[in-house]
Amino acid sequence: MPPLSSPPPHTAKPVPISHEIADFVVRTTWASLPERIHAESVRALLNWVGCAVGGANTATVKTAIRGIAGFAGTGYAPVLGRSERFDMASAALVNCLASAAHTFDDTHLKTITHPTGPVAAAALAAGYARPKPDKTVSGEDLLLALVLGVEIECRISNAIVAEGAGANLGWYITGISGGIGAAIAVGRLIGLDHDQLVSAIGLAATQACGLRATHGSMAIAYVPGLAARNGLTAAYMAAAGFRCSDGSIDGRNGLLQVMSPNADPEHIRRALGSEFELLNNAYKPYPCGIVIHPAIDACLELARNPLVRHTAIDRLDLRVHPDALNLTWRKLPDNVLDAQVSLYHWVAAALVHARAGIEQGELPCIQDPAVRALQSRIFAVVDPALASDQTAARLHLNNGQVIEVRVEHASGSVAKPMSDAQLAAKFRALAKPTLGEVRAEHLLQLCSNMRSVNDAAEVFRHGTL
Amino acid sequence: MPPLSSPPPHTAKPVPISHEIADFVVRTTWASLPERIHAESVRALLNWVGCAVGGANTATVKTAIRGIAGFAGTGYAPVLGRSERFDMASAALVNCLASAAHTFDDTHLKTITHPTGPVAAAALAAGYARPKPDKTVSGEDLLLALVLGVEIECRISNAIVAEGAGANLGWYITGISGGIGAAIAVGRLIGLDHDQLVSAIGLAATQACGLRATHGSMAIAYVPGLAARNGLTAAYMAAAGFRCSDGSIDGRNGLLQVMSPNADPEHIRRALGSEFELLNNAYKPYPCGIVIHPAIDACLELARNPLVRHTAIDRLDLRVHPDALNLTWRKLPDNVLDAQVSLYHWVAAALVHARAGIEQGELPCIQDPAVRALQSRIFAVVDPALASDQTAARLHLNNGQVIEVRVEHASGSVAKPMSDAQLAAKFRALAKPTLGEVRAEHLLQLCSNMRSVNDAAEVFRHGTL
Repeated sequence: MPPLSSPPPHTAKPVPISHEIADFVVRTTWASLPERIHAESVRALLNWVGCAVGGANTATVKTAIRGIAGFAGTGYAPVLGRSERFDMASAALVNCLASAAHTFDDTHLKTITHPTGPVAAAALAAGYARPKPDKTVSGEDLLLALVLGVEIECRISNAIVAEGAGANLGWYITGISGGIGAAIAVGRLIGLDHDQLVSAIGLAATQACGLRATHGSMAIAYVPGLAARNGLTAAYMAAAGFRCSDGSIDGRNGLLQVMSPNADPEHIRRALGSEFELLNNAYKPYPCGIVIHPAIDACLELARNPLVRHTAIDRLDLRVHPDALNLTWRKLPDNVLDAQVSLYHWVAAALVHARAGIEQGELPCIQDPAVRALQSRIFAVVDPALASDQTAARLHLNNGQVIEVRVEHASGSVAKPMSDAQLAAKFRALAKPTLGEVRAEHLLQLCSNMRSVNDAAEVFRHGTL
Repeated sequence: MPPLSSPPPHTAKPVPISHEIADFVVRTTWASLPERIHAESVRALLNWVGCAVGGANTATVKTAIRGIAGFAGTGYAPVLGRSERFDMASAALVNCLASAAHTFDDTHLKTITHPTGPVAAAALAAGYARPKPDKTVSGEDLLLALVLGVEIECRISNAIVAEGAGANLGWYITGISGGIGAAIAVGRLIGLDHDQLVSAIGLAATQACGLRATHGSMAIAYVPGLAARNGLTAAYMAAAGFRCSDGSIDGRNGLLQVMSPNADPEHIRRALGSEFELLNNAYKPYPCGIVIHPAIDACLELARNPLVRHTAIDRLDLRVHPDALNLTWRKLPDNVLDAQVSLYHWVAAALVHARAGIEQGELPCIQDPAVRALQSRIFAVVDPALASDQTAARLHLNNGQVIEVRVEHASGSVAKPMSDAQLAAKFRALAKPTLGEVRAEHLLQLCSNMRSVNDAAEVFRHGTL
């Protein structure tokens, strides 16, 4: 026999990764998760509920609801911030879509996946339906499902967008991996066994979809919504015995092969269960594309400088991460949706208004002549040496003065996360206009205390109209 | 001025192809279509209805219906060959899934798209719902919608899979282009205007999905079903005013760019309205992957040769088109779904049973020791010089005799299409077991006379239980 330290002469072909994922999902319990993950899952859920309630009255959501009413059957599943009821799949779609409507939802920074939306929306719909009729889905059940779904979702994103993997940046990654995360969360909640989970993963993987060409239209929020719908339906199909092959992720003609010719499933496998991608997830302080955030930080700092009045600005030179120009290159947007993904609008708005909140994403600010005029004097160039949470700004004033600001870590990044108090303030700002102050506060308390809640569906009791 | 024959010095950037597609869809009338397209649309619909009714009692459909019942709301839309009712989107999904369950549906040979399923299933569901309450959808309305949807679907497939375009063969092309075809058909039926059609196209394009890793499992039929659902819902969302950008097909980060880096939208544009892809569509004589059909033809011919008994076969050497081994490489399948995409199973079954019908796709034949034994003596190699409807077979008998057969055009190919009588016989064989002889015959007559039918939804009156 060879010495133990040598590899075997013929390494066995690894089992399809779907089986390893299913093992992980079946064996992981709430008690087995580290305290830090417990706490972070509450923050992710709270941030998401706030975004969903806050998006409920946008034109995007109102229009989607009219559209769905045209083809959906009657159902009983609720929509946050609203009074309509739908079938579970449509309700999951709308709740996730609403949470993305202000582009205020969370972001897995390495991959620009918005992880919680599809997973939480699908899991909450399934929880509301009570998979076991005699038993509620507890807060811990819901949070565990969320952790598991987000974990696999982000790891699949990691494998697809890894440097050298070969993915096209035009794919909208939340739509690619989000449905798989949602299927896993719902699958765990409704008690799928190993083989059913493998099928659910496959049925979600074969629905992976989403184009970044949707950016700048209502459809930007549709894609995460689709992921919620697709994942939820995949789990229920698998529960009924609908089968999908186990090679859907890393097999021949599977998701990794078609998305990223050089993708390595090790990104999914490595340290699964001991390292958690939820800790690489960030909550946004500003309601726009996250790649814009470092530049907003820089401009808010500039705007706070007493030397700087926007009328005195000659030009602003910005160095940004490549994604900032790949994804948010738009200049002079003339509507809310284009503005959400316009670096130039937000930078100008931050300099002119010295704020970057919901109002800076709305028409009066988009049409503000001062904001529009300033955009022509902003010159952004890519600096590949910058991380995605970094920027370097050099402001030239008309009087010849130059002020430089460098942002090492954007607010809300993993290195400089929003505090619990900041998240609560964001929640209140989003939920109050829809629910009123008292109900918004109740909902915030419920979400904050989710670990001890007996019935996670209480979110809908407090959060619907 | 330069002479008229010179191109202008700066060619204007072409308008996004979605606008040209919308123009084509809005302006085309039934009367403007050539008679040959009129006739072919009836054949496509008839073949599809037969497949859907014939698939209604498969395990795949029964399981899907149980799964959908777990999350869908209550609805009124019917399912061919069955008694259940669903919401429109789910009904469209199941009807399309059923039509694919025996892999007996039609094939656009250049791209291996199965075009009619998503389009017809979605259009029939929309027609049943009566977009204008005071008016039925006529047979001509339905057939026009079918022609338009199939046309754009196949042209998008052409652009994506064109040689040199760069698409990964692992994508399941019906799921990629099928939803767009379905959105167009439904959009025409419910009267979308130009801008709404552009949005519907985008909302369907951003749902383009499907992995060939589903082959060999129930999920192979799910993907076309998803396309029907996705296209129908895209059209209704657009009708409500839900917007998607017009670059969804050929714009930055649009479908062509992400699927096929070198795709040329000219494949969609060229001769639009004067040349029709429906004429490149083929109906299957055998219920299995179409790339297997030339080899089945060859083996049925060999089996008819009085010199050939399967017990006397030493080996069979087959030369096949590359897709035959790319897509149907499986040997010794042990279940119905793997057998559907196993060249070796069907070739052996055709030689042993001298038939290639529904029964040759079922378990008794799959488990037949004679069929299994013969598979180990079949040697298939790729011959890039062969077209996808060609094969060359060389059979060696134990006594040393060698018999050669070459198939220039497979039965059911564009060059050697199934006759109307053959299509009617296929319809009867599929529909009779589900509907009984009398109702099957009524449904066949209705479909054959669809051009003069006042209410296309009559298909459900005759075709449901």
